[in-house]
Amino acid sequence: MKPRDSASGVVPQKFSVTVLRLGHRLVRDERISTHIGLVSRAFGAKKLVLTGADDHTLDSINRLSQSWGGEFEVVYIKNWREFVRNWKGIKVHLTMYGEKLDTGLEKLRRKGAGELLLIIGAEKVPAEIYSSVDHNISVGNQPHSEVAALAVFLDRLFMGEELYNTFSKARLRIKPSLRSKKVEFVNEN
Amino acid sequence: MKPRDSASGVVPQKFSVTVLRLGHRLVRDERISTHIGLVSRAFGAKKLVLTGADDHTLDSINRLSQSWGGEFEVVYIKNWREFVRNWKGIKVHLTMYGEKLDTGLEKLRRKGAGELLLIIGAEKVPAEIYSSVDHNISVGNQPHSEVAALAVFLDRLFMGEELYNTFSKARLRIKPSLRSKKVEFVNEN
Repeated sequence: MKPRDSASGVVPQKFSVTVLRLGHRLVRDERISTHIGLVSRAFGAKKLVLTGADDHTLDSINRLSQSWGGEFEVVYIKNWREFVRNWKGIKVHLTMYGEKLDTGLEKLRRKGAGELLLIIGAEKVPAEIYSSVDHNISVGNQPHSEVAALAVFLDRLFMGEELYNTFSKARLRIKPSLRSKKVEFVNEN
Repeated sequence: MKPRDSASGVVPQKFSVTVLRLGHRLVRDERISTHIGLVSRAFGAKKLVLTGADDHTLDSINRLSQSWGGEFEVVYIKNWREFVRNWKGIKVHLTMYGEKLDTGLEKLRRKGAGELLLIIGAEKVPAEIYSSVDHNISVGNQPHSEVAALAVFLDRLFMGEELYNTFSKARLRIKPSLRSKKVEFVNEN
């Protein structure tokens, strides 16, 4: 384990993250939504909630989890407004218009820990989101990619420790290598 | 300016990053390649090099740069093998099979500074890449997204300072906000 800030004595708080992806629009966004799901899983979130069309995104992510393990969940909901309203923990919206990432993270750390709902949009999110959340946080103030914003936010929130997570009941596991591709087939279940 | 490790006295080395995107395959990858370009730009790289089909990716990124400023370049090349072979600086390949990110970055920092070629593939990269580069580095050893791997790698390399970059001749600029969308129209050119 190699937490980046272990020298400074800061322990990453125990946030439990659910990612809510708004604006998922049928085939056009399938690839991006799949990336969002895989990134959520790989960077330590426990669940992805999709709104909108039912399609292959859920299947492709679940298929991957079957091979690579872990308890990551993907679900669809019909009414995201109700979902956000009923959320009992912290609500964060990632947007290029939001406050600086460093500042936003400081505020979150002062809260300590909890169930964190992380909301990301496809393109234009409904205006009401901005006032429905506790924090609107940016990852840089330039247009780029919600996939990137999600990954960097989680990597900063978990201080790089998420990259050392293990995935239960994995059938496949990679052994980091300098020059080759080493995949282990795991039979310990 | 708020560098994350300023307390520890570590100064981010002056790496100049060119991103080489392999395997860009016509329309299917246009959205992902656009995300790759926008992320490269927003996270401090100076240039994106695309191989393969000529399409709208270059135009959409350049159009964005016209509005949001900066000197980010996007170019196409026909022969990536030659390009990689002729590269005079450090060559890094981002791959889920590579060595741990923390370890890989330590090695890069020991090199100090320089022109860094950062190679990312779409899906399967040609096997020869692994032996053609100086470092094969992973961002976690789970399958996720090349967009995410790129963003997190750059954010770690530049230690979060890239999010404070300014973009010359920008016509649009966002003013970070807690609850609203503040865009400035810049007329100082």
